Amino acid sequence: MSGAVFDHPWLSGLFGDADMAELLSGPRQMTHMLTFEAAWSRACGAAGIFDPELAEQAAEAIARAQIDFDDIKAGMAADGVPIPRLVKQLKALAPPEAVHKGATSQDVVDTALVMTLREGSLLIGGQLMALETHLKALEAKFGDAPLMGRTRMQAATEITVRDRLLSWRLPIKDHLVTLDQKRADVEKLQIGGASGDRKALGDKADQVMAEMAKALNLAPNDKAWHAMRHGIAGYASFLSLVTGSLGKIGQDIALMSQQGIETISISGGGRSSAMPHKQNPVAAELLVTLAKFNAAQVSAMHQAVVHEKERSGTAWSLEWMVLPQMLMATARALKTANTLVQNITWIGDKQA
Amino acid sequence: MSGAVFDHPWLSGLFGDADMAELLSGPRQMTHMLTFEAAWSRACGAAGIFDPELAEQAAEAIARAQIDFDDIKAGMAADGVPIPRLVKQLKALAPPEAVHKGATSQDVVDTALVMTLREGSLLIGGQLMALETHLKALEAKFGDAPLMGRTRMQAATEITVRDRLLSWRLPIKDHLVTLDQKRADVEKLQIGGASGDRKALGDKADQVMAEMAKALNLAPNDKAWHAMRHGIAGYASFLSLVTGSLGKIGQDIALMSQQGIETISISGGGRSSAMPHKQNPVAAELLVTLAKFNAAQVSAMHQAVVHEKERSGTAWSLEWMVLPQMLMATARALKTANTLVQNITWIGDKQA
Amino acid sequence: MSGAVFDHPWLSGLFGDADMAELLSGPRQMTHMLTFEAAWSRACGAAGIFDPELAEQAAEAIARAQIDFDDIKAGMAADGVPIPRLVKQLKALAPPEAVHKGATSQDVVDTALVMTLREGSLLIGGQLMALETHLKALEAKFGDAPLMGRTRMQAATEITVRDRLLSWRLPIKDHLVTLDQKRADVEKLQIGGASGDRKALGDKADQVMAEMAKALNLAPNDKAWHAMRHGIAGYASFLSLVTGSLGKIGQDIALMSQQGIETISISGGGRSSAMPHKQNPVAAELLVTLAKFNAAQVSAMHQAVVHEKERSGTAWSLEWMVLPQMLMATARALKTANTLVQNITWIGDKQA
Amino acid sequence: MSGAVFDHPWLSGLFGDADMAELLSGPRQMTHMLTFEAAWSRACGAAGIFDPELAEQAAEAIARAQIDFDDIKAGMAADGVPIPRLVKQLKALAPPEAVHKGATSQDVVDTALVMTLREGSLLIGGQLMALETHLKALEAKFGDAPLMGRTRMQAATEITVRDRLLSWRLPIKDHLVTLDQKRADVEKLQIGGASGDRKALGDKADQVMAEMAKALNLAPNDKAWHAMRHGIAGYASFLSLVTGSLGKIGQDIALMSQQGIETISISGGGRSSAMPHKQNPVAAELLVTLAKFNAAQVSAMHQAVVHEKERSGTAWSLEWMVLPQMLMATARALKTANTLVQNITWIGDKQA
Repeated sequence: MSGAVFDHPWLSGLFGDADMAELLSGPRQMTHMLTFEAAWSRACGAAGIFDPELAEQAAEAIARAQIDFDDIKAGMAADGVPIPRLVKQLKALAPPEAVHKGATSQDVVDTALVMTLREGSLLIGGQLMALETHLKALEAKFGDAPLMGRTRMQAATEITVRDRLLSWRLPIKDHLVTLDQKRADVEKLQIGGASGDRKALGDKADQVMAEMAKALNLAPNDKAWHAMRHGIAGYASFLSLVTGSLGKIGQDIALMSQQGIETISISGGGRSSAMPHKQNPVAAELLVTLAKFNAAQVSAMHQAVVHEKERSGTAWSLEWMVLPQMLMATARALKTANTLVQNITWIGDKQA
Repeated sequence: MSGAVFDHPWLSGLFGDADMAELLSGPRQMTHMLTFEAAWSRACGAAGIFDPELAEQAAEAIARAQIDFDDIKAGMAADGVPIPRLVKQLKALAPPEAVHKGATSQDVVDTALVMTLREGSLLIGGQLMALETHLKALEAKFGDAPLMGRTRMQAATEITVRDRLLSWRLPIKDHLVTLDQKRADVEKLQIGGASGDRKALGDKADQVMAEMAKALNLAPNDKAWHAMRHGIAGYASFLSLVTGSLGKIGQDIALMSQQGIETISISGGGRSSAMPHKQNPVAAELLVTLAKFNAAQVSAMHQAVVHEKERSGTAWSLEWMVLPQMLMATARALKTANTLVQNITWIGDKQA
Repeated sequence: MSGAVFDHPWLSGLFGDADMAELLSGPRQMTHMLTFEAAWSRACGAAGIFDPELAEQAAEAIARAQIDFDDIKAGMAADGVPIPRLVKQLKALAPPEAVHKGATSQDVVDTALVMTLREGSLLIGGQLMALETHLKALEAKFGDAPLMGRTRMQAATEITVRDRLLSWRLPIKDHLVTLDQKRADVEKLQIGGASGDRKALGDKADQVMAEMAKALNLAPNDKAWHAMRHGIAGYASFLSLVTGSLGKIGQDIALMSQQGIETISISGGGRSSAMPHKQNPVAAELLVTLAKFNAAQVSAMHQAVVHEKERSGTAWSLEWMVLPQMLMATARALKTANTLVQNITWIGDKQA
Repeated sequence: MSGAVFDHPWLSGLFGDADMAELLSGPRQMTHMLTFEAAWSRACGAAGIFDPELAEQAAEAIARAQIDFDDIKAGMAADGVPIPRLVKQLKALAPPEAVHKGATSQDVVDTALVMTLREGSLLIGGQLMALETHLKALEAKFGDAPLMGRTRMQAATEITVRDRLLSWRLPIKDHLVTLDQKRADVEKLQIGGASGDRKALGDKADQVMAEMAKALNLAPNDKAWHAMRHGIAGYASFLSLVTGSLGKIGQDIALMSQQGIETISISGGGRSSAMPHKQNPVAAELLVTLAKFNAAQVSAMHQAVVHEKERSGTAWSLEWMVLPQMLMATARALKTANTLVQNITWIGDKQA
């Protein structure tokens, strides 16, 4: 255990999100990789690249394979990717001539990633919709209440609670639209083979692509995106924009919670070890922290778009370090925002 | 002169772009701000908020106003925005009761920004299309030539030049689609007044919005986006993805230009002060530099989405520091890429 | 398990470092926190703030306390810090009047962090020294060999292997000097109490500080650094400079490994799932990836220096998310560099 | 004019700093480069590499050379560096055999940079000392006043104004110590020649180094630091830590200025175009903005430490884009902080 907050024995209580962690867990990623390999065997069987019967045998064996993670871990340091060892394990369980041939590590790892992103997108989409609903409910309850508008933190002119809440809710609505665009940008099959040209598939490339698309429900495409990473980085940008908008909500709430301002009341809230009476806006602050975190990470994802030639070991593995964390931070922020918004018991200026 | 590369007496020879610089220049920004103020006077005149005749007089006076930039500069440090001084200047030239009333600094500055982004988007869009064309031409010329594929910088399997060029061109095609999405996200009127609630316009808010939308050809909207900055940050992300994709082209070319690899020939190229015979892949390297630059800047733009309450002085002015530079870097990268691609005289493995 | 690479079931084979992970593990952090609390009881006993006998009882009970991590985790989400629950657990095991009183969450968490940094610094220092040694050995072996110098990736003039190796080794030497400076900057007691003013300690503050400094072997100071985070961010900058220098080594080696350049030979190296004959410079690439990763993270640590008033929940917890990862990345990079440099079997131009 | 805030016709009123801009201006940079070239001619003359008489003639001609910046700008795009054209101009004015020979572009540009940094460090050091003085004066005036401590923005326990002011002042003191360390890290001669090995100087390298060190008052060294950029990036980190600490002061002041909190009074302050009565904490906000800006830029400087082989065109020119801006932001922040602190007319809780 490396001290990473999402999995930490106690810090995960603040930063962790069990649902997204499940989607990003090793076993689930492995399931996606096995799903790819099984579908691959079948698709190559259907296309006549593999013997169809052996292909079916392989697919079935792959589907029920028990993978030795420690062996794969041992291979990571040497190979930089998990697939050589995984394939070796699979070939011991299934007809080797009907396993993986024609595919490459990046096909498996990226397609599995895309399957993870699809699941993550559903989680995020659901949370965004819930947040929109909770914000509407808040508006219905307190929208008409007067509230001193604050520009540059200074009292400006009186607005209504609705005015501020709209600046919380409308971005969520926009993010739901963007999510659909981004899903279309990333939910694409990754099939290229050794140097990304599908040459190993010969004239069966289109058929294999079609079979795989059907099996995995991912968009087929004319060219592997091994070295074209703007889609992934664009997805990461979306995540950071979501946490940015939630950070704005958190920042507002933390400011509104200050004694002397006190234009919001929240049930729950944090204790202090030195001052047991004190109530800290922990959830609101967490939204700001997660926004700042993702805003730093997004830079790494953009650096990784410079992906040299047919495959960059450096840029690709930088994505592995960063993107899962951005998903975790986004999921945690959304869940925190949903709870926080529901815990608001009053919003508006104190009555005179 | 602060040493900023885009305007530097000689560094601008490498980093500058005259066309984008013109769009970002003070005088042009001022024109947009005056366009806003003139349209505002007329719109408020049409809505009966201002006396229509005075409004027309004001609009005409504003349109031909000679602005004293030094006075505005003097106001910046005190006010943090140019508008109080600008309005004071305008009121000296035009019927004061028909100037700016009901609007706020952010309405003017953000709407002017959006007009700049529209012009910038056209420039970028045109350059993206040109690049797509030049890359297609390159493909037509050299696409069939054999080329050793390189994964993790290592020789992998033979591909064709077309395979590599597709990883250069297809992202450009995608960016053109994204540009349209992003334009829709940002080309929106900014009208909110003091605290962003349009209250100063009373029941004429919708009419003013409609008149302004018509006059400025920007999308009307139900709520000022003063404190909702995901659109602007999303646009910045787009810029960085573009330079990222161009950085990939540059990185590839720099690597291909190495003696010992030599799978590309380019006319032109850089001299060395110590080795006059040497030819450096300056343009290719510049693409990598600009990609890394924007990938760092994009982080600041995402940090700025956390925009507190009705207006954040800190987050808003952070955008001013960063976004123009990203536009400059993107424009320069596109122009450099267009020239560089046209200067390619050979691409592919050396014949044995 | 959240997909974080350092703890991932197989990705940790590439990214993980068992030694640093041990230092950053929850149990070890807890040991530091208990060490603080036990020393605190004794110091307050010695100063007469606590009853000395009860204080000693408390210290002994704290030292052998079995902490329920799940309980603390449950408290994290509500409190934003682990200490309220920890103190509650300790008070159930020890005389409550001689536990924690006068201290605050940040005193415990930051002092424990500093104890972690001290251990981490030793690990890093040792690895830096080993690397310096291995680089010297390499120089002794191959230093005189001719090597074509490369500027802007282009062949320039012939240098010796020594010339390039010096640009790998001299930064390491500098980093060892900087490490000492940075250790002095951070290895400081954090004692402030509720609002950081040590008021709860009355006129015994200096004595408590002295006792704690002796017990924990950390520098005493006149003022808690709760809200002064430049030391921590400066330490993070140091980590990123180290990985930057190692990234330069990695980048050089990856470039030197290219077929057509081939000025280095390395034993070991990565396999490909599609091309079993291929050898990938995985370790060299990893150094580049870790450098880019830390260069992004360092931005977050600098953002966190803006730490409002007496304690910022947002800035402080941003450090928790980022600093442990930077330590992990640095440790992994150092170990990788040490192995990689020892695996070099040849460096220099191929003989004609 | 590219819209860059530091030179902008009116935004520079908020962001610009005339003193640092002067240090970073093209003409001053050119003076440093000419100083290098003149010293180089003399040093090589003294060492007998150049004919001493011609060398002296050359040095004198270089010292009074009128440089055509447009010509150099024209060379930048092609060469990526200003020196080939500069040398050509100089050779037209001076005995060509006694000009530049044995040096390379990076020697000139980096040594000139270091001369700029030395001047910038003096400016920064002076401002840091002034700020320390002003903060001490503030403490003398208001230090004993009671102030409600705020942790996580919430009222905690009463402290004194001194307690908060110490968290503003002590980091400044630390930064002055660090400035000395960083100056030692960067104020080093850059002399390497074509591939950085000083081979062109033969056995006169040490003598040339000694002469240059004496002439330019910069530290001699055993190896050119062409490809070792941790010193420069460490200096950039220092700048960002300074603005971070000033950002903390600004954030505190902005929060203290809120109506309802009102624990600070400041003379001057910003106007609003919509609410002429309103006073905005513009200077305080600017400090936060500049901190966030530098915290993003520092990431680019760390990315640039990965500097391939003997010279990286990409990493080196990334420094050019970023470091001058960080110097400008730091200078502006320091001057703003100094003014702001002097404008404080009251600090502390309002008396009951």
